[in-house]
Amino acid sequence: MASTSKQDGEKSISAYGDARSTVQGECLSADEVQKMTAYFRATLYLCLGMLYLRENPLLREPLKKEHLKQRLLGHWGSDAGQSFTWLHMNRLIKKYDLDVLFVSGPGHGAPGILSHAYLEGVYSEVYPDKTEDVEGMQKFFKQFSFPGGIGSHATPETPGSIHEGGELGYSISHAFGTVFDHPNLITLTMVGDGESETGPLATSWHSNKFLNPITDGAVLPVLHLNGYKINNPTILARISHQELTSLLEGYGWKPYFVEGSHLQSMHQAMAVTLEQCVKEIREYQHQARSSGKPFRPRWPMIVLRTPKGWTAPREIDGKLLEGFWRAHQIPITDVLTNPDHLKVLESWMKSYKPEELFDDNGKLVPELRSLAPSGKSRMSANPVGNGGLLRKPLNLNDFTKYAIKDVVPGKTITGGMANMAKFLRDVVSKNMTNFRLFGPDETESNKLAEVYKAGKKVWLAEYFDEDKDGGNLDPAGRVMEMLSEHTCEGWLEGYILSGRHGLINSYEPFVHVIDSMVNQHCKWIEKCLEVEWRAKVASLNILITATVWRQDHNGFTHQDPGFLDVVANKSPEVVRIYLPPDGNTLLSVMDHCLRSVNYVNVVVADKQEHIQFLSMNDAIEHCTKGLGIWDWASNDQGAEPDVVMACCGDVSTHEALAATALLREFLPELKVRFVNVIDLFRLISNKDHPHGMPDQQWRAIFTDNKPIVFNFHSYPWLIHRLTYRRPGQHNLHVRGYREKGNIDTPFELAMRNGTDRYSLAIDAIDLIDSLGNTGASVREKFIKFRLDGKKSAFTNGLDPEHIRNWTWPYSKETKTN
Amino acid sequence: MASTSKQDGEKSISAYGDARSTVQGECLSADEVQKMTAYFRATLYLCLGMLYLRENPLLREPLKKEHLKQRLLGHWGSDAGQSFTWLHMNRLIKKYDLDVLFVSGPGHGAPGILSHAYLEGVYSEVYPDKTEDVEGMQKFFKQFSFPGGIGSHATPETPGSIHEGGELGYSISHAFGTVFDHPNLITLTMVGDGESETGPLATSWHSNKFLNPITDGAVLPVLHLNGYKINNPTILARISHQELTSLLEGYGWKPYFVEGSHLQSMHQAMAVTLEQCVKEIREYQHQARSSGKPFRPRWPMIVLRTPKGWTAPREIDGKLLEGFWRAHQIPITDVLTNPDHLKVLESWMKSYKPEELFDDNGKLVPELRSLAPSGKSRMSANPVGNGGLLRKPLNLNDFTKYAIKDVVPGKTITGGMANMAKFLRDVVSKNMTNFRLFGPDETESNKLAEVYKAGKKVWLAEYFDEDKDGGNLDPAGRVMEMLSEHTCEGWLEGYILSGRHGLINSYEPFVHVIDSMVNQHCKWIEKCLEVEWRAKVASLNILITATVWRQDHNGFTHQDPGFLDVVANKSPEVVRIYLPPDGNTLLSVMDHCLRSVNYVNVVVADKQEHIQFLSMNDAIEHCTKGLGIWDWASNDQGAEPDVVMACCGDVSTHEALAATALLREFLPELKVRFVNVIDLFRLISNKDHPHGMPDQQWRAIFTDNKPIVFNFHSYPWLIHRLTYRRPGQHNLHVRGYREKGNIDTPFELAMRNGTDRYSLAIDAIDLIDSLGNTGASVREKFIKFRLDGKKSAFTNGLDPEHIRNWTWPYSKETKTN
Repeated sequence: MASTSKQDGEKSISAYGDARSTVQGECLSADEVQKMTAYFRATLYLCLGMLYLRENPLLREPLKKEHLKQRLLGHWGSDAGQSFTWLHMNRLIKKYDLDVLFVSGPGHGAPGILSHAYLEGVYSEVYPDKTEDVEGMQKFFKQFSFPGGIGSHATPETPGSIHEGGELGYSISHAFGTVFDHPNLITLTMVGDGESETGPLATSWHSNKFLNPITDGAVLPVLHLNGYKINNPTILARISHQELTSLLEGYGWKPYFVEGSHLQSMHQAMAVTLEQCVKEIREYQHQARSSGKPFRPRWPMIVLRTPKGWTAPREIDGKLLEGFWRAHQIPITDVLTNPDHLKVLESWMKSYKPEELFDDNGKLVPELRSLAPSGKSRMSANPVGNGGLLRKPLNLNDFTKYAIKDVVPGKTITGGMANMAKFLRDVVSKNMTNFRLFGPDETESNKLAEVYKAGKKVWLAEYFDEDKDGGNLDPAGRVMEMLSEHTCEGWLEGYILSGRHGLINSYEPFVHVIDSMVNQHCKWIEKCLEVEWRAKVASLNILITATVWRQDHNGFTHQDPGFLDVVANKSPEVVRIYLPPDGNTLLSVMDHCLRSVNYVNVVVADKQEHIQFLSMNDAIEHCTKGLGIWDWASNDQGAEPDVVMACCGDVSTHEALAATALLREFLPELKVRFVNVIDLFRLISNKDHPHGMPDQQWRAIFTDNKPIVFNFHSYPWLIHRLTYRRPGQHNLHVRGYREKGNIDTPFELAMRNGTDRYSLAIDAIDLIDSLGNTGASVREKFIKFRLDGKKSAFTNGLDPEHIRNWTWPYSKETKTN
Repeated sequence: MASTSKQDGEKSISAYGDARSTVQGECLSADEVQKMTAYFRATLYLCLGMLYLRENPLLREPLKKEHLKQRLLGHWGSDAGQSFTWLHMNRLIKKYDLDVLFVSGPGHGAPGILSHAYLEGVYSEVYPDKTEDVEGMQKFFKQFSFPGGIGSHATPETPGSIHEGGELGYSISHAFGTVFDHPNLITLTMVGDGESETGPLATSWHSNKFLNPITDGAVLPVLHLNGYKINNPTILARISHQELTSLLEGYGWKPYFVEGSHLQSMHQAMAVTLEQCVKEIREYQHQARSSGKPFRPRWPMIVLRTPKGWTAPREIDGKLLEGFWRAHQIPITDVLTNPDHLKVLESWMKSYKPEELFDDNGKLVPELRSLAPSGKSRMSANPVGNGGLLRKPLNLNDFTKYAIKDVVPGKTITGGMANMAKFLRDVVSKNMTNFRLFGPDETESNKLAEVYKAGKKVWLAEYFDEDKDGGNLDPAGRVMEMLSEHTCEGWLEGYILSGRHGLINSYEPFVHVIDSMVNQHCKWIEKCLEVEWRAKVASLNILITATVWRQDHNGFTHQDPGFLDVVANKSPEVVRIYLPPDGNTLLSVMDHCLRSVNYVNVVVADKQEHIQFLSMNDAIEHCTKGLGIWDWASNDQGAEPDVVMACCGDVSTHEALAATALLREFLPELKVRFVNVIDLFRLISNKDHPHGMPDQQWRAIFTDNKPIVFNFHSYPWLIHRLTYRRPGQHNLHVRGYREKGNIDTPFELAMRNGTDRYSLAIDAIDLIDSLGNTGASVREKFIKFRLDGKKSAFTNGLDPEHIRNWTWPYSKETKTN
């Protein structure tokens, strides 16, 4: 038995016995308790059915092992607690006509959610073969954790779900994302006590400092003290009541406890507690909305302590089951081989009395069905849970109005990011309830501060007088900044998945912090493509700045362009990577990304001032093609080139262009073709990615027999990986970052990694030479060039302005706009 | 001005004014205060010198812009608070003869740390050119945030540092790692209020549930309420005193506040408070150690609220500086162009009165020097901060004693992971103060539960009676499990960097959670290689199990083998990747990894039962070579093969072998060479990685003109990336995971991704055919084979036992041991 102690003591309370709760009193009639218990039994019966049965769904025949799935998979542990909470929210949705979304944090308790979706009829609506009868129930059971079927988490196939919970830690940040700018929505979030140990979850409690009670809805967390993870107790279930209360109060919440296992009293306790929470939420909202004064209340939340695997047998053969970690997955594992245990299972399932709950056809009896709300009020049918239904395209100004004007290719110098920020400012101002910008305290550093003119930073924590001095804080802001990439990304995902639009900006090195989250979002979107009823959501837009080549004083730890490798592994149906070389291409790319749906768009662009290359017209054309020859930088017009100088990324393009200038200066007889790549997946075959191109096109641009020097923003191997089957790939020589860093000026860092103009030019000559394409005189010049070049590099290399001061020395040779 | 309010009120207190503190009283004499203030001034002077000066270090000439660095970089914001804390700990180290390590969480305040290292003489000891005189000081200043110099974080070049703080969030977990099994060590950890917003930091406060006061030392966190991040206030500085107190108490700590800016009173407050904390720590330790009863006290900690950029001018030209986010980096940015501001800087620096602090030669005056401890008692010289000095090799049993015996290649079936766990058990038992196993609640699931026989799971939270039923919890355990990959990884890094050994085990899909941490550790180690005085530390060993191919019921979200791509981007000097195909190779690899130093070893091995391939002798030979031809599976002896069937990874090897069996059955005239790769970097050129091999060796194994079907564990492109320059690479056809997943049996998942035996065999025949190497009769057979194979696959595919039931149908054809 779990140890027990008094509620205010130093030890935590037992999960067993009559309910003990912060809010006292009863509000349910005996009839309501009886009906709610029956409904609860129905969901639990369905949960076990999903875990075990492939035939005989209502146990109208004696249970035989032939009725069981041959491989038993799935999770039981948190099903009851989640189902219980859903059931109680149903009552309040009906009573107060609430708009509620359910986010299942433990995830591993999907049966608890699925059973409600089925009983509410939504499952049959979206999957017509899973009818509300014996046959449909049998199919519903069989598909669960079954090859080709659905998983044991709240996957995209689950109606009403925007949060799978496979990887733990994001339920609260996702939930907050759904309620921003949805003032009438309450998102009820089950938080697992296991997931509570993760870092992302631990900090996401602070999201309440970023919620405006006037314009946003509310998140109602239910921390489920289920007691155990896979094989361990949870921390939060093993600290004192006092400590847990302090922790949650310290996070800014007002916790209400509901603890116990005795059904009738637990129903009463949960009913009064949940109602109290809903009332408080509405009161705070009323107070803020009627006064017009946003404030940060101590939002209510619930701590629900029930035994893990609640309502299962307490022990089997002397081994603990209910209330122990053994209840985590399949509660009785050997029913296929142990006839006694098969009997235990049968009587356990029958103890829920399915014959009282389902009619002859196998449908939930009407008096229970009426406990659930109807139509879109059902949490499993809330349109927010299929946010694409609510998505409206952004109202975007013509991005060409923000063009950097009078660009002289290779000569004009300006800050493309700061310029794009003006476009972004107006995206904010024209979509004040529909778009937010997210970032971990780097928005200003990333030269995007212009957006604060349209929407400041959301802040509901304390204000000091000094904030007037450029603090840009505002309870009604539109920019979300917290020093947690996890929380920012989680908010954004929730915001998008519930039908809105957004963009996250991050330093390049630290975007790796959310590798795993982006992976999971890619998988979510990919799976949604296969789920017919899922409407398309806005793309997840990730703007990466403060890039590897401009970490001038932060040095080695801040140099990591490898996020692209992580993203490139994901499904070609979902991922897009753009490296606009300058300001006008950045504008065009951003416009494209903001209009797109169902993608994960990664845009890499440095925040500093850089040389500009393209007029707006040229930029649009270049972005449309995704890569192309820049005639004005090439001198191979009408002829075969001796070498192709290719590049991808802003600093990389800069140096490749400078290398081209050197080659043309020292070896004017060389024919150099200059190619820039903006859409990374153009490099891959059209068979492998929708943006890919056929070999024929590749050949027309890169040739299949000339040396290619490719200067890349990221690790060089990514280019080899994308092009390993291309004609002439053996002539492809890629330079990129190779984990050789220090406290470096940009030029020095480039030198160290061989991506600077001198190294590239020497590479080009070496390659031409190795193919036997240069005569003795050229080779002599080349030796001189090497010496001069290196000397020059080392003389000038220490000048941090070196890169910025260089411009393209030639006049425009072909028309550029 | 910051708003002020009473300490127990609902608003947070000001950072300004006389000290207010939880502990009252004074313990310093006026002389001590005067001296400590002088020492503090000396450190602050050095901080500014680092940020600004390249000449004229002691301002003995009027400051001119020629004395300044041409590019001003570095961070000022948290320098003073960190220096102040260090200074006060120095007093107690001397008074109580303490063993203290300093971990700098904010990181961005490295000058605060470096200045102490210099004043204590350690800097000159490890960098003899940075002497304690004017010339040395000039060099010390100039190198800071300067090309080729040191960074603005506590990088590996910083004496006493094990934690750079470039990427934020890991200071507490690193600190705990250092004190486990170091009973006399106190690790004083400055925690930034910015980093406190990160997820990893937020959950790492719970580390106190895993610290044994008898056998471990203590962590003393100083939460530095500096008030601002780069451009934003911090959350923890903008919640009420009450909320912050609750939060920290909820995390299980006892917070003592020290708040204010007035120097004299702050010295008194910090002195009594820090002493109180040290006394409490020692009392708790004494209580536990004298009674032999470990318990979890409310460990003390400090909340230090001082103005950001403390001691800087409060405002310049009407713009706030001290106490505002403008003090984050270079406090006055335009001194090179604004002569007035140059004057401000000069008088600010002179206000610290360097002439009173340094003697004629430029050395700290003796009466101040005597405030610091000496020898190894200096925090900048603590050997724990150069943990390699303390490292002792593990006491390892002969791993061959744990061999899986009587292996019949391709026929024996057993669980290699469960077997290896026995070896690991004895690693634990023979190194009870020197080795720990870490993992996020997956150790048992990963079949490593055998280790609990030698050391259970560390647990200092509450115990329930039910824990006796297989709970395996123990305050004196050796296995660290918390559902936070971040915390586990942080603990392990801290444990290794302070001179011990360890291993983390994780599910493959969720190891991406720590991508960024592993990246940073790789960079730390790589940089350490360049720092002469850094002794080698044990390797970071990462065991990845529950792999992509065996996520039978978890489905798509649990399928991600891409961690290898992240690791492969890091320095070849540091990273090693092994994919042992079976149990004996796993043993040999683990033994190798545990003996190695200064690497990041990634070992990928599934936890389920699998076919075994190699006897122990063969395994050792295979591991030594890193890859090789398996004669017993090949039939090309003495001849050129028609096809090379290559593989890497356990499930991949299994299917490649089954494909080979099919080919030999259907097309016995084909000559198949079977190659297995265990050491992934063998595939790359020896020019690019120390484990790489020359083309000649490559050719001998893979040929340069035969088709190679390569079945890979992870995404296929990694192999292309590693081999893109190899002879015959155009004949290399790689199969791997391609983000095509579902709820699948292993075999189905392989089918979906084309890594199953039938697909591989068909690939082989297609490739041979495309090279024109097959005649009509073979092609006919092949068509039949395709049909039969596919049919058979679909018939058998639904049987989840399918993979496990298959064994190699041939008897051993060549000697295998």
